[in-house]
Amino acid sequence: MAKKDKILIVGLGLIGGSYAQGLSAKGFDVSAIDTNLDSIQYAMEQGWIMQGSTVDDPELIHEANLIISGLYPTTMVKWIKENQQFFQSHALITDVSGVKTGIVKEVQENLRNDVEFIGAHPMAGKEVSGVRYADAKIFEGANFIITPTEKNTEEAIERVRQLAVDLNFKTISLLTIEEHDRMIGFVSQLTHTIAVSLMNTNDNHDLKKYTGDSFRDLTRIANINETIWSELFLLNKDNLVKEMDEFIQTMEYLKKVIEQDEVEELKYLLIQSTTRRHYFDE
Amino acid sequence: MAKKDKILIVGLGLIGGSYAQGLSAKGFDVSAIDTNLDSIQYAMEQGWIMQGSTVDDPELIHEANLIISGLYPTTMVKWIKENQQFFQSHALITDVSGVKTGIVKEVQENLRNDVEFIGAHPMAGKEVSGVRYADAKIFEGANFIITPTEKNTEEAIERVRQLAVDLNFKTISLLTIEEHDRMIGFVSQLTHTIAVSLMNTNDNHDLKKYTGDSFRDLTRIANINETIWSELFLLNKDNLVKEMDEFIQTMEYLKKVIEQDEVEELKYLLIQSTTRRHYFDE
Repeated sequence: MAKKDKILIVGLGLIGGSYAQGLSAKGFDVSAIDTNLDSIQYAMEQGWIMQGSTVDDPELIHEANLIISGLYPTTMVKWIKENQQFFQSHALITDVSGVKTGIVKEVQENLRNDVEFIGAHPMAGKEVSGVRYADAKIFEGANFIITPTEKNTEEAIERVRQLAVDLNFKTISLLTIEEHDRMIGFVSQLTHTIAVSLMNTNDNHDLKKYTGDSFRDLTRIANINETIWSELFLLNKDNLVKEMDEFIQTMEYLKKVIEQDEVEELKYLLIQSTTRRHYFDE
Repeated sequence: MAKKDKILIVGLGLIGGSYAQGLSAKGFDVSAIDTNLDSIQYAMEQGWIMQGSTVDDPELIHEANLIISGLYPTTMVKWIKENQQFFQSHALITDVSGVKTGIVKEVQENLRNDVEFIGAHPMAGKEVSGVRYADAKIFEGANFIITPTEKNTEEAIERVRQLAVDLNFKTISLLTIEEHDRMIGFVSQLTHTIAVSLMNTNDNHDLKKYTGDSFRDLTRIANINETIWSELFLLNKDNLVKEMDEFIQTMEYLKKVIEQDEVEELKYLLIQSTTRRHYFDE
């Protein structure tokens, strides 16, 4: 990104706000649109944005040559359709959505020919939401995925890569939208459905005083924003349901092995688990 | 415990070794039996034990008025049967086993009338084993459960409670052996079978570079000692299989809700998960 870039962030939540903080600290001219006046005022007070609006101000939109959507996926698709008339020619639009199939193509197929949309996924977050929790430090050491399609240019890929560098992401990767959604179905969504299912199994809060770090670590992500995660799960339904099926089958098998006292097979499964877990050691 | 107590630890692993360290630091006369010479020598060098033996030395056993088994559950049952002839009259025997049904009664029913066995479970550990990883600090702030039966005396309960105090445990509770095993089936064993099943679902280590803290936290306990955990799972089979069944049913239901795009029910499940998880906040 050249320093002359004018960046517009649409949707000043936890991630949009953290982008605003990180990019303004690097000297970029950042503005924002968010329907919540308090969010705009807070970001102004913090010095994260130069201008802000609670409505889709055509002039503010037109001034930006880089537009970053911090909106929920389905809201973003709608916003771009309604506001692309105001985009300046050659503007680049990118996003922060946790799913890509069904979003990226939908946007690209309906986009004006003189602007470009490229999907991106900053793999960072917190178990809270809203601009008041924004903190650009969450990006340090985190992964950033760019999901170009055949509609994207090398220039756009490079520009978004530089955005990730400016935000201090550690590992920047390229994946197709299909690879991205398969990966996220396992690494993120399956683990969230597991934690949620564990909390929903029983109301066992009388057991609070016996829980240790293991239980707390495993269920930390059971504290979950129902609006964004229900969108993410449903948009990636095919991958997620397949992963859930495979996980349930594996757990059914472990249960059978325990029920039938198959000691050697049980030990084998525990050894395989330990071996595979070591791949993920830092 | 009176300081004149002579404590014998049988089985100098991670937990037995940590007991030896913590109790010797408090001024108790601690000795140990372990078949591994290196473990005995290491504990001697550290000043954690005054005497040690790699065999079941009748004299060393007889000198102790408090015997703590750090052995695996089934090994302990066998060891007590074979060595109770050497116990001094009025000796108190306790343990560190993670399951109680099937262990405590088996020991108590076969025990000499002039000695007493009382079950205890220090809820602390590490994902490694062996005396070289022993560290009495793991007990600080942890839970300690005493599982008395109708065969136990108030004096024995008090003595084991004092043992937990001397080792710096934070919360000391009494549970029946049945309550203990139901609790541990959910809080500890179910969570371990979940993490193990997740690692066994697929060999996905090509996804390493995309995993974040959530995945690592959830699967940390998938690094698991196959010998001790296969014993613990099988000894608590009835409780564990019931918990696994209920969890799988809950997850099947969540899957159905996602498959059928039931947005409102999905949001309800995510809200319930979040609400319940808050009970476990520290």
